[in-house]
Amino acid sequence: MRKFVSNTASRKLGLLRHLAAASHSRFLSSTPVLDLLSSMPSANPPAAPPLSLDTINPKVLKCEYAVRGEIVTLAQRLQQELLAKPGSHPFDEILYCNIGNPQSLSQLPITFFREVLALCDHPAILDKSETQGLFSADAIERAWQILDQIPGRATGAYSHSQGIKGLRDTIAAGIEARDGFPADPNDIFLTDGASPAVHMMMQLLIRSEKDGILCPIPQYPLYSASIALHGGTLVPYYLDEATGWGLEVSELKKQLDAAKSNGITVRALVVINPGNPTGQVLAEENQRGIVEFCKKEGLVLLADEVYQENVYVPEKTFHSFKKISRSMGYGEKDISLVSFQSVSKGYHGECGKRGGYMEVTGFSPDVMEQIYKVASVNLCSNISGQILASLVMSPPKVGDESYESYCAEKDGILSSLARRAKALEDAFDNLEGVSCNKAEGAMYLFPRIHLPQKAIKAAEALKTAPDAFYCHRLLNATGIVVVPGSGFGQVPGTWHFRCTILPQEDKIPAIVSRLTDFHKGFMDEFRD
Amino acid sequence: MRKFVSNTASRKLGLLRHLAAASHSRFLSSTPVLDLLSSMPSANPPAAPPLSLDTINPKVLKCEYAVRGEIVTLAQRLQQELLAKPGSHPFDEILYCNIGNPQSLSQLPITFFREVLALCDHPAILDKSETQGLFSADAIERAWQILDQIPGRATGAYSHSQGIKGLRDTIAAGIEARDGFPADPNDIFLTDGASPAVHMMMQLLIRSEKDGILCPIPQYPLYSASIALHGGTLVPYYLDEATGWGLEVSELKKQLDAAKSNGITVRALVVINPGNPTGQVLAEENQRGIVEFCKKEGLVLLADEVYQENVYVPEKTFHSFKKISRSMGYGEKDISLVSFQSVSKGYHGECGKRGGYMEVTGFSPDVMEQIYKVASVNLCSNISGQILASLVMSPPKVGDESYESYCAEKDGILSSLARRAKALEDAFDNLEGVSCNKAEGAMYLFPRIHLPQKAIKAAEALKTAPDAFYCHRLLNATGIVVVPGSGFGQVPGTWHFRCTILPQEDKIPAIVSRLTDFHKGFMDEFRD
Repeated sequence: MRKFVSNTASRKLGLLRHLAAASHSRFLSSTPVLDLLSSMPSANPPAAPPLSLDTINPKVLKCEYAVRGEIVTLAQRLQQELLAKPGSHPFDEILYCNIGNPQSLSQLPITFFREVLALCDHPAILDKSETQGLFSADAIERAWQILDQIPGRATGAYSHSQGIKGLRDTIAAGIEARDGFPADPNDIFLTDGASPAVHMMMQLLIRSEKDGILCPIPQYPLYSASIALHGGTLVPYYLDEATGWGLEVSELKKQLDAAKSNGITVRALVVINPGNPTGQVLAEENQRGIVEFCKKEGLVLLADEVYQENVYVPEKTFHSFKKISRSMGYGEKDISLVSFQSVSKGYHGECGKRGGYMEVTGFSPDVMEQIYKVASVNLCSNISGQILASLVMSPPKVGDESYESYCAEKDGILSSLARRAKALEDAFDNLEGVSCNKAEGAMYLFPRIHLPQKAIKAAEALKTAPDAFYCHRLLNATGIVVVPGSGFGQVPGTWHFRCTILPQEDKIPAIVSRLTDFHKGFMDEFRD
Repeated sequence: MRKFVSNTASRKLGLLRHLAAASHSRFLSSTPVLDLLSSMPSANPPAAPPLSLDTINPKVLKCEYAVRGEIVTLAQRLQQELLAKPGSHPFDEILYCNIGNPQSLSQLPITFFREVLALCDHPAILDKSETQGLFSADAIERAWQILDQIPGRATGAYSHSQGIKGLRDTIAAGIEARDGFPADPNDIFLTDGASPAVHMMMQLLIRSEKDGILCPIPQYPLYSASIALHGGTLVPYYLDEATGWGLEVSELKKQLDAAKSNGITVRALVVINPGNPTGQVLAEENQRGIVEFCKKEGLVLLADEVYQENVYVPEKTFHSFKKISRSMGYGEKDISLVSFQSVSKGYHGECGKRGGYMEVTGFSPDVMEQIYKVASVNLCSNISGQILASLVMSPPKVGDESYESYCAEKDGILSSLARRAKALEDAFDNLEGVSCNKAEGAMYLFPRIHLPQKAIKAAEALKTAPDAFYCHRLLNATGIVVVPGSGFGQVPGTWHFRCTILPQEDKIPAIVSRLTDFHKGFMDEFRD
């Protein structure tokens, strides 16, 4: 026992305590204590931990993701404080307007979708009599149809790497019905939400920091984050706030040429339509110009179309880039196009299900094989998400038992979102020094705040961006969480924040009043 | 209409056909056909597609994933041929023994788990009277408990980036019960299966090809694939087939030193326990040596423990590396350890649910923040998978209504797997020139085939690896899909294949007989 008089005595005493506490546990049964001790080094100096910020992958360090950044960490802390000590803040709940997460703000799921998911999760109840009383007839029928599309009806098995073939058939049919042009199930890759699909494409496209991806500014930070993680260069193009976040092909060309002259090979163009965080819906004419540009410049068009169901103004309609390309006569051999879709958005907002797909067209068979291989390394996306993606692209139809209730739920949500967008837009627009474009689509408003110099200086003194300073003050005063514009990118010297349109309708008046009061106080404090 | 007499006439005629077919569709309603045509370029030469194998990320090209590689593509083709033309092959079904996917081979899910998942998917039925007749009382109670742990009971909302806190509490309690040492829910990251967790750690650790990861050979190709995709170097250490795939610390040290002398910074050690594809279960003494080695050499220990429930021999017990480290007196500050767990394996085999977690211990708070950030970029893992991960770590207990049926289902599966492992192992061992170690755990056998020179030469003539040659012949003759050892790595000059132990028990005799006949014929054909 001499060994214990060593400089590692205290660690070993700790061990002894563990041993005493665990002496009857399973793991010690076959191992005498002394053997255990004798296998230990007697005086190993404690090594430095193998990982520090200096030694992790610098691409990880570089990556930023504002939507769940510092402000959300602060919000979570405040929420815990409110829970532990009610009344400790001038508000009694945290209102998360930072993220497009409808069901976290009490939006209910679409009944038909959930019925089918539950039945596919537990098919053993499908032919029980009680099931008829609990589930609608078309949900039961749809569950049988889906199970029949799955080899062995095994919803617990890995599927084909691209997703269950029968579900891809349904999705392809849904795309055809939407676009009026053919869709091939073999072009569809089902994914756990749209994010992994975006990562997959960035991984394929980016070889080094000399490869650039044209991205809108402001952009959804998934793009900046995934480009950073894969070691590429984000080539920004600016949306024109003055024309309702217009996307000008001349700006694309200007930025492409600038990138080229800096030695960057631009490989792809990201377009988010409807826009995130900017909410604009592109006009067809504009989309045709974008397609033409990609074709001419040899760029892959990465079309983020996850908000395709979220359009709130009668004068705008969503058109997929695939439909636009095909309507221009461009087929498989003319343009490389990836369309991203997600079950997290739309009227259903099933974020937690992590379903989505990408439709990959205009790539050569050998490149498609490489995409298939990368998909295979992760085996497959979750089957519930796959099923939900098929339901979203093939909801109940006229004559189905659920059709009316489905339409009522869907229209109720979409029309309420339109009203909420308008109410919040008007409220922002009425604030001193704030201007706010319409949310024609998506789930966000991105108002511009003209901050007084005094506020900008106060922010600088705290080494924080002026819009982040504003958002922190807003959170601390009202419990409302919004994301500073600097997390999305903006024209230098302008300041914005992103606010979802998702708070429940009956809460909007109180939110508007809290916002207005805060803003007035802020301006009074900092007015030049 | 003069334009149509151009060299792009045929493409435009294709367009005209589209327009005719779609002339009543929504997209044309606001767009006169001639406008559409006039916006087309008149004679743009067709540009080369933006992507080819020469211009994609070479890391993607380099990555290989044998488990779903060429042989599976061939199997899928044969399956389609059988479907289109029954009797076209000397077998009437394809038997997928290439992948640990139990439910694809008719294993049924655990009833209690599926009841809870279905109820969480469709909570609206929880308080209906029919539900009592369809679901067990403890499943209903558990569903309520889980819903109460989810803010707003919203199973359709994004969760915390690490997963729902209440579920992480349950998992941490399960780890504590398993190990007899504390577990912190803040160390747990819920993921869509174990694969994304492994990617996340590789992304964190690998800065360039100068960073190495020590991996067993043979290994599960997720590791070689993710190291290739993230641009690092796989530093192999060989498991000793002669001692039942023994893992020698002296071999680790030898390979580490060799890597160092080649300018590689080795950052982590991957250990798969129970082994995949090799099926061995590590002894405690061996695990202590491995922990000591990582500590001494400053390596992160990446412990793939997804087969922790799959141990089939009475003389071996699974011990987590965390328990081993803690029992040696090593705490948070002594060793950086990541344990991967998945709902895809175990007795439940819920591959399609894509649930899993990693427990990350011994990292500094600022590095943990970086891991959190990377997790946040993908928002969260799917909620059904999160719920299932909590159920797996906290199944029904004595006294619960489902307890007995749960135990019967679990024990039935595990004891059958043990019998199947033994039957297949014996069958392999009886084949001429084949030797096969025990599957002490996991779901695989990895028999060695001593191939005749003539077979090796025949393979070489076809530019294929000799074990791939054998596996292709096996598939074409019997419909049995196994993976060539070359997909996992093996001592040069030795040949193996991986075969799962998952075919249903009543099929095993037929499989053994098909295998035996094939092998005999193969050896007769190629015997030197």
